[in-house]
Amino acid sequence: MATKLTASPNSLLLQNPNRQHLLKPNSTTTFSSFSTQNKSISIRCATTSTAPVSPIPAQIQDPDRVFNFAAGPATLPANVLKKAQAELYDWRGSGMSVMEMSHRGKEFLSIIQKAEADLRTLLNISDDYSVLFLQGGATTQFAAIPLNLCRPDDPVDFVVTGSWGDKAFKEAQKFCKPKAIWSGKSEKYTKIPSFDDLEQNPDTKYLHICANETIHGVEFKDYPIPKSGLLVADMSSNFCSKPVDVSKFAVIYAGAQKNVGPSGVTIVIIRKDLLGNAQEITPVMLDYKTQADNDSLYNTPPCYGIYMCGLVFEDLLAQGGLHEVEKKNKKKAELLYNAIDESNGFYRCPVEKSVRSLMNVPFTLEKSELEAEFIKEAAKEKMVQLKGHRSVGGMRASIYNAMPLAGVEKLVAFMKDFQARHA
Amino acid sequence: MATKLTASPNSLLLQNPNRQHLLKPNSTTTFSSFSTQNKSISIRCATTSTAPVSPIPAQIQDPDRVFNFAAGPATLPANVLKKAQAELYDWRGSGMSVMEMSHRGKEFLSIIQKAEADLRTLLNISDDYSVLFLQGGATTQFAAIPLNLCRPDDPVDFVVTGSWGDKAFKEAQKFCKPKAIWSGKSEKYTKIPSFDDLEQNPDTKYLHICANETIHGVEFKDYPIPKSGLLVADMSSNFCSKPVDVSKFAVIYAGAQKNVGPSGVTIVIIRKDLLGNAQEITPVMLDYKTQADNDSLYNTPPCYGIYMCGLVFEDLLAQGGLHEVEKKNKKKAELLYNAIDESNGFYRCPVEKSVRSLMNVPFTLEKSELEAEFIKEAAKEKMVQLKGHRSVGGMRASIYNAMPLAGVEKLVAFMKDFQARHA
Repeated sequence: MATKLTASPNSLLLQNPNRQHLLKPNSTTTFSSFSTQNKSISIRCATTSTAPVSPIPAQIQDPDRVFNFAAGPATLPANVLKKAQAELYDWRGSGMSVMEMSHRGKEFLSIIQKAEADLRTLLNISDDYSVLFLQGGATTQFAAIPLNLCRPDDPVDFVVTGSWGDKAFKEAQKFCKPKAIWSGKSEKYTKIPSFDDLEQNPDTKYLHICANETIHGVEFKDYPIPKSGLLVADMSSNFCSKPVDVSKFAVIYAGAQKNVGPSGVTIVIIRKDLLGNAQEITPVMLDYKTQADNDSLYNTPPCYGIYMCGLVFEDLLAQGGLHEVEKKNKKKAELLYNAIDESNGFYRCPVEKSVRSLMNVPFTLEKSELEAEFIKEAAKEKMVQLKGHRSVGGMRASIYNAMPLAGVEKLVAFMKDFQARHA
Repeated sequence: MATKLTASPNSLLLQNPNRQHLLKPNSTTTFSSFSTQNKSISIRCATTSTAPVSPIPAQIQDPDRVFNFAAGPATLPANVLKKAQAELYDWRGSGMSVMEMSHRGKEFLSIIQKAEADLRTLLNISDDYSVLFLQGGATTQFAAIPLNLCRPDDPVDFVVTGSWGDKAFKEAQKFCKPKAIWSGKSEKYTKIPSFDDLEQNPDTKYLHICANETIHGVEFKDYPIPKSGLLVADMSSNFCSKPVDVSKFAVIYAGAQKNVGPSGVTIVIIRKDLLGNAQEITPVMLDYKTQADNDSLYNTPPCYGIYMCGLVFEDLLAQGGLHEVEKKNKKKAELLYNAIDESNGFYRCPVEKSVRSLMNVPFTLEKSELEAEFIKEAAKEKMVQLKGHRSVGGMRASIYNAMPLAGVEKLVAFMKDFQARHA
C-alpha cells in the first residue's frame, strides 16, 4: 500500500498545480524550498499558509485538481483557466462570450491580433515571417508543407527521430519525393544523429525535422543546417517551451495542445517569400498564401482556441518570457531524470542523455510487471495520464510549461516511495 | 433619437437572450405573451419578476447581454454557456478542464460518444451513416467531398443558390469535373429552381446543394432527387434547426458555429458505403475513411468545441427535439418577415417568399442612405451584428436556434419605431 501522499498538509499543497502562476510575481521566490536540493516530501511553503496571494485564494489549495501528465491535450495554467472561466459568459463587457463573436468583429480582431503580437514578442519573430492560426493539427501540415513548398517531383530530406517525424515523412510521399536520410527506428528512436554525418541531397527542397518527439522523448538541442537553406520543423510538443531562433527556419508548425492552448489550433510560422507556390491540387484551406493574405480569416477560424492561446501567451510573457520558462522546464526535467538515473536501474529512461526531452519523459520499470501497479497507484494519488503511448508502453510523464514544479516533485517523491516498497 | 427600448423594465426583460432556456421546463408556457400575436413591446412576463426560476437567477435579467444577430460564430444558448462556465475549471470532479483532457482518456471519450449519440437521436441518423467531428470548416469539406467521392474525371452537378454553393463549386474544380447546372447569380441569388427543370447529367457522381445560403438568405424547403442517387448538402447554417430526413443524403456537412457550437468543429454525416474511395492525393486528415475508422480520433480532435456541441445537443433534446426547435424558428422568422412585408416597402427582403431562410434574414431599406443609421441605432439598443455581408450590403438578421423570440420581438419593435421616425 502506498503512503498516502495526499493526506498530509504538505501534499495538499503539492496537489495544487500552477500555484506559482496564482502567486503574485514577487512571491515566486518563496518557493525555493521546492527546489531539487530538497528531496523530501515534507516541503515547507512560506506563503500559502498565510495571507491570500491570489485573486482567487480559495483555489490555491484546491484538493480536487489532479496533476495531469497527459501528452496533449495537456495541463493548462490554472490562472489562465480561471480567467477564461470568469469571462466565458461575458467577455470584458462585450455582452457576449468569445465563442459567440463574429470573427470579423472588432472584439475578436483585437483578440487574434494581440495573440499574434504576443507570440511575435515571445519568439522574437520578424516581419519576414507570417504567423498563421490554422486548424487540423500538425497532421494536416504534414500534407500542407510539401503542397506549399514542392512540385511533385521535388526531393525532400527527412531526419526521422520518432513516430511523428515518420508520419510526416509518409504523408509527404503523396506530394513530393521525400527521403529519410536518417532514421532512429532501428534503435527505437532514442537518438539524434550527428549533423555532420547526414547525407543530405544537394537538390533537396527542404530538410524536415520533428524538434521534439512526443512519444519517444527525443529533443533536438541544436539544429542541422540544410543544404537547401530551408529547415522545416514540427515543434508541436516543445513550442514556446524555450527560446528558438526563428530565423534559422523556413517553416515552424505546432499544434497548440501541448504548451500553448487547447486542441483545435495549429500555429504555422512561415517565411513570407515562400508563400504563393502551392501545387494546383492544394485544398484552398491548406494554401498558406490564402491564409496569410486573409490574416488567418479566409474562413471562420477556431476563435475560442485562439483566444485561449492568447491568454497563455500573455501568461508566458508575464512569467518573464521564454528564457525564464526554459529555466523552469530545465529544473523540472532535471529533477525527474535524476530520480530515474539515481534509482540504481529500478527506473530506466532509454533516451540518450544528451537529447532527452525537457517536455516528455518516457521511462520503464526494471520489473516491468509492476508498471500497471505504478500507474494505478499514481492515479490514486491524483497523478494521472502517466501511461506510455500505446505504441511503446511503459510510462511517460509529460511536463509541459504548465506542469508546476510541485507536480514533478510529487511524482519524484512517489517514485521513491514506490521503489522503496518494491525494490 | 430612438426610443430607448432598453430603459423600461419590460425591455430589460427583452434584453436577456435565452431566458427560455434558463427557465425550468414547466415554466416555459408562461412566455405565451411573447407570441407573434402580441406586437407591442410592452410585454408582461409572469415569472421573471417573482421567484427565481433558474439555478443562476441573478443572470436572468442581465442587462449586459446583447442580442447578437451575427451570422456565425453566433449567439449560443445562455444556459449552455453558464454550464460550460461552471465546469470550465473542473469538469464534473475530474480535477481538470475539458481543455486539458487527453482525447484518448475515458473522460473525453464519454463526452464525444455522448455528443455523437445525442446528435444521432436529434436527426434520427441510422447506423448506415458515420458521424465525424472534424476541423477546418465547410471550406475544407469543399475539397474533401470530391476527393472522397470522385475520380479526377468524374462529372458532378452543382445547384448554385448563393456564394457558399459557388465556393464549393469552384473548389471542386481542382478534384473533379463539376458543372453548375443551375445558378441564381444573375438574379442575385434570390431563388431556388424548380427541381423538374434541372438538367442533371445522367453520369453525375453526385448532386451538390447548399441547403441554406447564409449570405443571401435562401433555403431549400425540399430537396431535389439526384440522377446518381447521391445528394450532398452543405447544411452549415441550418444544421439542427429543423428535422431532416438524413436517409435522402449521401453526405451532410456543417460547420458548427451557427446552430450547434463554437467555430472549429465541422460535422460530417456520411453513408458508410461511400467510405474508402479517396483519391491518392487526399491529405490523410481529409480522408473520411481514416476519420471514420478512428472515430474522429485519428489525431487530436477539437475537444473543447466538441464538448460545447455536446452541451448544445443536450439542450436541443431538452427542448423537445428538432420538431419543437423548428416551431420556434418558424415563429421567429414569421415575425420578422411579416414586419418587413408589412412595412409598405420601407423594409425590403429580396428573396422569393417560398424559399426564404428561417435562419438568415437579409433586408434593405427603401431609403438606403438610412442603413448605416439603422445599424448604429440598433447597436445602441444592444442589437448587434445587423450589417449585411460585405458582398451584398444592407442588413442581415441571423436568427439561429439560440436567438430567443424576445430578440426578434425587440428587433421588430425597433424596426417599427425606426420606420415611424423616418418614413
